[in-house]
Amino acid sequence: MATMQDVAQHAGVSIATVSFVLNGTKAVSEPTKRRVESAMAELGYRRNPAGSALARGRTDIIALLYPALQRQLHATATRFFTSAAERAQERGFSLVMWPAANEAQEIDALTKSGLIDGVLLMEVQLEDERVEALRRGTTPFALIGRTQDPTGLPFVDIDFEQTVISGLEELVARGHTSIAFIYDHSGPTTLHAYGAIARASRTFRDTIAQSGLSGVTVDCRENPRAGREVGETFRERYPDVTAVLIMNELASPGFMTGLRQAGTQVPEDLAVLSLVSSDTVASMSDPELAFMRAPAEELGRLGTDAVIDRITAPDSPLPNTLVPCEMVNGNSLPRLTEQA
Amino acid sequence: MATMQDVAQHAGVSIATVSFVLNGTKAVSEPTKRRVESAMAELGYRRNPAGSALARGRTDIIALLYPALQRQLHATATRFFTSAAERAQERGFSLVMWPAANEAQEIDALTKSGLIDGVLLMEVQLEDERVEALRRGTTPFALIGRTQDPTGLPFVDIDFEQTVISGLEELVARGHTSIAFIYDHSGPTTLHAYGAIARASRTFRDTIAQSGLSGVTVDCRENPRAGREVGETFRERYPDVTAVLIMNELASPGFMTGLRQAGTQVPEDLAVLSLVSSDTVASMSDPELAFMRAPAEELGRLGTDAVIDRITAPDSPLPNTLVPCEMVNGNSLPRLTEQA
Repeated sequence: MATMQDVAQHAGVSIATVSFVLNGTKAVSEPTKRRVESAMAELGYRRNPAGSALARGRTDIIALLYPALQRQLHATATRFFTSAAERAQERGFSLVMWPAANEAQEIDALTKSGLIDGVLLMEVQLEDERVEALRRGTTPFALIGRTQDPTGLPFVDIDFEQTVISGLEELVARGHTSIAFIYDHSGPTTLHAYGAIARASRTFRDTIAQSGLSGVTVDCRENPRAGREVGETFRERYPDVTAVLIMNELASPGFMTGLRQAGTQVPEDLAVLSLVSSDTVASMSDPELAFMRAPAEELGRLGTDAVIDRITAPDSPLPNTLVPCEMVNGNSLPRLTEQA
Repeated sequence: MATMQDVAQHAGVSIATVSFVLNGTKAVSEPTKRRVESAMAELGYRRNPAGSALARGRTDIIALLYPALQRQLHATATRFFTSAAERAQERGFSLVMWPAANEAQEIDALTKSGLIDGVLLMEVQLEDERVEALRRGTTPFALIGRTQDPTGLPFVDIDFEQTVISGLEELVARGHTSIAFIYDHSGPTTLHAYGAIARASRTFRDTIAQSGLSGVTVDCRENPRAGREVGETFRERYPDVTAVLIMNELASPGFMTGLRQAGTQVPEDLAVLSLVSSDTVASMSDPELAFMRAPAEELGRLGTDAVIDRITAPDSPLPNTLVPCEMVNGNSLPRLTEQA
């Protein structure tokens, strides 16, 4: 590969002049500039990242860290990525998805490499050593998600508490008083232990207790077959329950299949509302699920804005934004107007 | 931010010495090394990407280019990413997913930035200006997919031709002679026009013609509702068809729902085999779909190997590997042994 020195020799100028042309750091006469540029073209000189980054002190790359090596990507996670990448592009940055193990050490190595100007961390756990590593370092960062105590941290997150409360209100408004909450209980011992599960299940228990409703939580792993198994025996195991909140997108279509195969009519025998889901999966179910849509696009944009603001305006206030899910009607829940 | 010069002044050494310590390019005495390192620590000096990359002439980063800005990520695409990232890590590289518009210009800008050492291109179209841009440049690359004429290009791809032939053989072995092929016909005018659709549909037509079977192709957009609409009217529109190949993963669960709602029994009235699909989506359907599994993990690994080989051994033979899909039984197709 041709070096800057090769270009300088070929063009008959100093290396400094080549650098000035490359980086625009000092005015160079037009004829000299053209001589340098044609030397670069002739020699197939490839502008070195390093030269350019060195001159500007920035790479303009933001890494969206995702533990892809340990976890299959969710449909919702890919929606984060798409919207975050778009927003970064609008603001003159490149956002790349960087597969990362769930370790502080890897965060340290990445931020010290200097290849990236900012980090956006996903799947944040309640206690998260990666967040501590980011806090110790000097690389600007923001979280999509939050730790147990996010004081002093820049974050955007789904408002899981409000989402569960709104979901319960939808069911209560339709006359339900005995309600089950289905989610993957294995969360707390695995990587899945991001705050989502903890916050949602605590809110369910608290709200049920405060409101005099009857509530039960039901365990279900995150896959369609586990959902079907839970659906097949649901009425038998919980004969008094008349409505379900399910926060388990991958299991939800299987849950509906299991209910149908067991002869459980939805919504007549059992009303179902899926929390933190997407149009695609809701419409794969039969009947189509009523659901609270994960604000993935909005969080992707807000998270990207948060990290770019940390880079370009380090003294601006720390964002701590919670976005609730939005209710989308579906055939697994009667519409309120239809009930009147 | 502290510069190398700040570190040099603080440690009382030359910039060259700081560079030697940073890059290990020349032996430096232990006391001097310690003085430089403590100066870096005190000043919070951040190792510049550029310095390191310049010294080594490499960043060890491979970009998996995916047109995320125009297309939602598929479950299968994310499986490519996960396995490709793992394989890169095993070989000492970092693979990042780089969202890219579908334009040659963007490829040029990325490869000229020098920030990446190699490119893995996905969703390759039959005529693809991005491939031409990569061919013109000097950055090592490989394709997951292939153009109309991939001669002289390093690629790995699904063997769509063999997959369709195997799928037809499965149906013929069960006595079917009137077969429909469902896929998204809008492909050729959009970004979806990667070779997959073109190759699979041509193979279907050719094989039907050569074998004296009766065949029809059916259009269906890539979403669950479109699948349900096609399913609801399928028997009415195609009363003679007894078996279906569907190459449209997102529509397939909806197609099954539509059939059921129209009273079409699967597999008794209609046998269904899903091509190029995944365990997750197949098990979301009712009944669970028999399918030919996309070799996503294998292609991710092979594609990564291909591009790393181009980087580390540019004279090695160009890979041109085709991997067929693997048959997975499901309840939408009777097992052959059950028929005997």
